[in-house]
Amino acid sequence: MSAPQMPKIDSTMVEDMILSLAQHGAVGETGVCRLVYTDEWQSAQAQVQTWAEEAGLVTRFDQVGNLWAKAEGQTPGPSFVTGSHIDSQRSGGRYDGALGVIAGLVALKTLVASFGPPKRALELVSLCEEESSRFPTAGFWGSRAIVERSSPEDCETVVDEAGAPISAAMRACGFDPARIGEVARDDIAGFIELHIEQGPILEDADLSVAVVDAITHIRHTEVTLTGVSNHAGAFPMDIRADPMAGMVEIAAAAIAHAETLGRPAVTTIGQCSINPNAPAIIPRSVTFTIDARHPDPKAAKALHDTHNLIMDKIAAKRGLTLTRRLTLDHPPCQSDPGPLNALQDAADAKDIQTLRMASGAGHDAQQMGRICPVAMLFVRSKDGRSHTPEEFSSIPDIVDGIQILTGALYRLGYC
Amino acid sequence: MSAPQMPKIDSTMVEDMILSLAQHGAVGETGVCRLVYTDEWQSAQAQVQTWAEEAGLVTRFDQVGNLWAKAEGQTPGPSFVTGSHIDSQRSGGRYDGALGVIAGLVALKTLVASFGPPKRALELVSLCEEESSRFPTAGFWGSRAIVERSSPEDCETVVDEAGAPISAAMRACGFDPARIGEVARDDIAGFIELHIEQGPILEDADLSVAVVDAITHIRHTEVTLTGVSNHAGAFPMDIRADPMAGMVEIAAAAIAHAETLGRPAVTTIGQCSINPNAPAIIPRSVTFTIDARHPDPKAAKALHDTHNLIMDKIAAKRGLTLTRRLTLDHPPCQSDPGPLNALQDAADAKDIQTLRMASGAGHDAQQMGRICPVAMLFVRSKDGRSHTPEEFSSIPDIVDGIQILTGALYRLGYC
Repeated sequence: MSAPQMPKIDSTMVEDMILSLAQHGAVGETGVCRLVYTDEWQSAQAQVQTWAEEAGLVTRFDQVGNLWAKAEGQTPGPSFVTGSHIDSQRSGGRYDGALGVIAGLVALKTLVASFGPPKRALELVSLCEEESSRFPTAGFWGSRAIVERSSPEDCETVVDEAGAPISAAMRACGFDPARIGEVARDDIAGFIELHIEQGPILEDADLSVAVVDAITHIRHTEVTLTGVSNHAGAFPMDIRADPMAGMVEIAAAAIAHAETLGRPAVTTIGQCSINPNAPAIIPRSVTFTIDARHPDPKAAKALHDTHNLIMDKIAAKRGLTLTRRLTLDHPPCQSDPGPLNALQDAADAKDIQTLRMASGAGHDAQQMGRICPVAMLFVRSKDGRSHTPEEFSSIPDIVDGIQILTGALYRLGYC
Repeated sequence: MSAPQMPKIDSTMVEDMILSLAQHGAVGETGVCRLVYTDEWQSAQAQVQTWAEEAGLVTRFDQVGNLWAKAEGQTPGPSFVTGSHIDSQRSGGRYDGALGVIAGLVALKTLVASFGPPKRALELVSLCEEESSRFPTAGFWGSRAIVERSSPEDCETVVDEAGAPISAAMRACGFDPARIGEVARDDIAGFIELHIEQGPILEDADLSVAVVDAITHIRHTEVTLTGVSNHAGAFPMDIRADPMAGMVEIAAAAIAHAETLGRPAVTTIGQCSINPNAPAIIPRSVTFTIDARHPDPKAAKALHDTHNLIMDKIAAKRGLTLTRRLTLDHPPCQSDPGPLNALQDAADAKDIQTLRMASGAGHDAQQMGRICPVAMLFVRSKDGRSHTPEEFSSIPDIVDGIQILTGALYRLGYC
């Protein structure tokens, strides 16, 4: 690579943008509640559009509500894209999603101001409803439309908690659900998403930024064990069919297995319901969830196979009926050497030490990975917190991230 | 013992009484809902009173609503008492409690008809609100009053689910809460309770009746583990403080320990609540109950000590805050050799093979054990079922039980 010295990122501008964008949907001191297709979300998108036009980018909204801002290339061809989502949890913080949009904007603005139009087109995208915080089944709504994983029919079946379809909310913002197919892109050369880590690994490693080499496989399995409800005093242990005894043995074994495997394997039992739920009654049934994640496809499969083996064995041993149902299954997404190396080279050029890690959370980049090479960049999260108004990343850490993103986009668009 | 051949128990009369008493508060085909101080409960007590007077017994109600029926002794002195409770679960079956009242009545009726008045007084008692099915904190209400474990103040603080005090319900039936102290007895020579087993042990052993040598220690501990709530994907296993991981490890170890100890130790995890309760979030806290039972005081203490050790160790290892609270603690009650041997001798005299076992459930006899020697007799339960309209004991099994009870009461009252 023959990249020149990259211009310094204006940290005051970055901080101003973060605080300014956080006003749209502000909750309390540091919280943000910006649900897709609401007034707060619209005004935030409008703010990003204004900033992008001021930076000399050409903007447009697609029919699902993603905002695109383009630095046209000197030669025709596909665009390299950066960005993230602008919708939030209810209530979330200032950084989750929004930071990737601001970072992309600052990077493109800095590049265009310093070097003029790129050789190959660069684009910023501000995606919508990654969080599914307004429409529970609409996760990755904006990026799914880009990779052609949503249809006009989906716009009727995806509903909010009151049962109103997402189509109505789209129309109220001027988007046409019937034309959601037009959102699909086949001219994207690659995608880089900068995001806060949402975990404690960078803090533990005392580093500001990580280059993400994979997004984990995420699988949710809902397991129901059914036995025989009886009197907790009058039924000896040796003739019980106690689903709670089965559940705790399965859960303890699955968690111990992930602990033995070590990073990046994780297994979480987050939800459980017991029927009946009384101190002196052996329950009839117990339903619980297993959240299992591993970024390596083979290791993920081995993890799921081990869980199934544990469940089958313990249910059979305890005379319990076992049913399981996949409620969520996002395949892993490996980062591509192209954007990955661009990020690493940019970091090395600036002498910013990075960590190499997998993402344990799902991201829009996982969707984008279906149509183009992707990579991600993580910025350190204070105490690993996220999805809360307390989430925080420092300006020096953020500037490190934007510096690397800028260098990478130079390598991908200007060299 | 110089007991003559005992008269044959009239099985048709026994069956008629069971079916007839079950009409008071009948629910569906075989269910009974007979809550204390309701019309159904009053009419059932009146039915027992009529039968007792027809048998030549002298009846009275005490101020808590227990019905007493006495065969006066030829020599003055304390009474030997038999009986059980007549209130039911909502809905329960025909046998839980009621069978012990009918059995006592049939035994006294048979003895008086065959042998005239006893040497020493014999009494039947039909107790109230053993189940706490109308007033949740009133368990063993009738027997507690007899052993002086309730006060006029308790009659105001014990309330139903709507918040109405038990005093109001007592007054509506003509009982005076201010005089509950008068219910206490200091002239009881001993107490035998016949009850259905409510478990599967007799069925397993292919026997009709068991002589109960102890009632188990019952302890409920409510345990709360508090950790740190975080993202299920972004937080590695090795730095989590996951209360659910702690709960399942503790519960699995406690259950495995009871399984290793074998009968009569039991440990049940019947209730659990998780906060928050979502598949992809490591919970902040988990609260669960441990129901632990053992009839031997030393073994019960060792069981509780082991549970505390397991909890302390696992909470410390996982960096969790642990709190525990005793919500119920009924000490064990050992049967007395006097009534125990009377039961065994009576069974041997009739060539009825019995099992010797501990009761895993709590009973009024446990309360009575505070003021006099006690023992119990269990009759086989079909499939070990109880607290349901499906509970069932066969007439031949029941007659075996009444035959033994009759022989024992002869030995205690006539010899």
